[in-house]
Amino acid sequence: INVFNHNVDASDKGEFRHYMLKEIYEQPKVIAACLEGRISDDRILTSCFGADSAFLKDIENIHIVACGTSYHAGMVAKYWIEDLANIPCTVEVASEYRYRKVAIPKNTLFLTLSQSGETADTLAALRMAKELNYLTTLAICNVPSSTLVRESDLTLLTNAGAEIGVASTKAFTTQLTALLITSIAIASEKGELSAEKQKALVTALRSLPAYVDAAIKQDEAIKLVSEQFANKHNALFLGRGPMFPIALEGALKLKEISYIHAEAYPAGELKHGPLALVDETMPIITVAPNNQMLDKLKSNLQEVRARGGELFVFGAKETGFEQAEGIHYNEIPWVEEILEPIVHTIPLQLLSYHVAVVKGTDVDQPRNLAKSVTVE
Amino acid sequence: INVFNHNVDASDKGEFRHYMLKEIYEQPKVIAACLEGRISDDRILTSCFGADSAFLKDIENIHIVACGTSYHAGMVAKYWIEDLANIPCTVEVASEYRYRKVAIPKNTLFLTLSQSGETADTLAALRMAKELNYLTTLAICNVPSSTLVRESDLTLLTNAGAEIGVASTKAFTTQLTALLITSIAIASEKGELSAEKQKALVTALRSLPAYVDAAIKQDEAIKLVSEQFANKHNALFLGRGPMFPIALEGALKLKEISYIHAEAYPAGELKHGPLALVDETMPIITVAPNNQMLDKLKSNLQEVRARGGELFVFGAKETGFEQAEGIHYNEIPWVEEILEPIVHTIPLQLLSYHVAVVKGTDVDQPRNLAKSVTVE
Repeated sequence: INVFNHNVDASDKGEFRHYMLKEIYEQPKVIAACLEGRISDDRILTSCFGADSAFLKDIENIHIVACGTSYHAGMVAKYWIEDLANIPCTVEVASEYRYRKVAIPKNTLFLTLSQSGETADTLAALRMAKELNYLTTLAICNVPSSTLVRESDLTLLTNAGAEIGVASTKAFTTQLTALLITSIAIASEKGELSAEKQKALVTALRSLPAYVDAAIKQDEAIKLVSEQFANKHNALFLGRGPMFPIALEGALKLKEISYIHAEAYPAGELKHGPLALVDETMPIITVAPNNQMLDKLKSNLQEVRARGGELFVFGAKETGFEQAEGIHYNEIPWVEEILEPIVHTIPLQLLSYHVAVVKGTDVDQPRNLAKSVTVE
Repeated sequence: INVFNHNVDASDKGEFRHYMLKEIYEQPKVIAACLEGRISDDRILTSCFGADSAFLKDIENIHIVACGTSYHAGMVAKYWIEDLANIPCTVEVASEYRYRKVAIPKNTLFLTLSQSGETADTLAALRMAKELNYLTTLAICNVPSSTLVRESDLTLLTNAGAEIGVASTKAFTTQLTALLITSIAIASEKGELSAEKQKALVTALRSLPAYVDAAIKQDEAIKLVSEQFANKHNALFLGRGPMFPIALEGALKLKEISYIHAEAYPAGELKHGPLALVDETMPIITVAPNNQMLDKLKSNLQEVRARGGELFVFGAKETGFEQAEGIHYNEIPWVEEILEPIVHTIPLQLLSYHVAVVKGTDVDQPRNLAKSVTVE
């Protein structure tokens, strides 16, 4: 499975109009492949990190370094790692990390993320890190034969299969799956996770392919909503907690393939500036979490409505949102909170896909972009 | 100096049309006030942190928490602290920090930034932090009588005087000055800074008011450039290293007062998505650093030009930029690298001010925004 040697043949798309849509639909299958052999009934099988997983116990700190979509996956993992494993975690874009003096605490794991494993800045960051005082280096990567995999001490493959569409979809959700496996494994080895809690998390993980499948079933409804974006030039995505990086990823998708200037903000920052942008021409998109942050988010959204901003809300029935004047509500399936960043990515992928189709852009090969950024 | 009790009287603006412009012009004076009594000829006077500055030696980690513009100041400080003091530093928006489980390493300083000292999320984060296992809490704040100052263990006042314009200007550059003082003090107390190096930094700091004054003298030239933005609806700001948060701040200013959808990116991330947005309608603004990153930035800018993007570059003569087809170049004064984030903020403040005037918006009281976000 090497994306660079992959023969891009229209017949590969099968029944799908674009690779991107095909790859969105492959997610239940490839997430299952990413879980395969890595979970038992009640725990993570730490052997998935290679013969010697003893390093997990020694980790006292984690530095995640990546670019673009992979960086967003890393940002989600910070929430999981600090919450589950109580280990400090920083996440940085590779082109920043590699050009500054980084302070490295004792026993820090250096973790890179890259679909292709050939991303120039991420590779350069890894090479720099190997000269520094890290515990070990772990790559979460989709291409087994890649330079990143070869040069890292340890690897966890995402098993997403070849990704052809320039806008990453299944590579992202499998990265998140691999990161959740990693977070649970570290938390468990560090003694921060009870056997029951681990079993509950693993049980949730086991349901992940089915949840993602259910999310994809909203495709037709999301296609209808996408028509509202035909004449939009700007958009704001809002999220809180681990859903903030998902908002970033949703905005990036819309930028990449529909050329709409979409930007994401942590919802709590709205009043510190971006609210000035909100008027009837600025749609606001959000995926509502089903937790104690819901009320906070609702209050942020009321501010937006009060300024004439049109809302597009994706949320489970339990969030209590309803279709209303200026509020386009799409129901998505309920899932365990820990899985929300993975499953709730799906509606945003579908939204950006259908908006690009409505806009008539070249979905699989958007202007100015390459699939793998192998130069700086 | 309490901004809440300050009598907003048009006569206070003196010769200036808006408070924002007045406050931009006050920066040489207030930065001098921020330095006053805190530096000797060759070192930081650590007494500025209060009677007992022994905590500086004990710091092994720093968590910076803030909102909006103050968050951008904190992001710059991370570069300084890791570089000068070799201490790990994280920076987080308060509305994210307060709602997640944070892993706190031993001997971590909790540092908040707020102009008013009444920012609701920042105060809530401080109250949460005081229940957690931090070394101590330090507030960098502009209002001595504020709740944040009262409730923090230690304070470093920014001494910027009352700030009336909703878009923060002098509060930001004095926060940066206070953060640089703090970074140098910690580096020195931790034994990471030679006496010569400290003297060189303090000498640079002493020149800061004059540099800022020289930057303000570009006002007329920047006013001319601003006319190019009269019909723009979008903009991208690019920066690398400690100039990335300055790009974020430049974009925030343009958002806040001119309602242009401006977004900032670390320049190295351009190819990972936002390049798709670039065409002849999307101006790109950058402040060129005068260091080893210059060539990298120039290569990023060539990519932008190749896609028809119009460039607005601010840089010292030494950067070698020149006026050319599609490149609007404005010269700004050379300064020591450590001071670039502070001094190079000025042209971006002036740009957003003049663009707002050209657009005819209410500069001092932009729509939808309040000066101090005292509610969540």
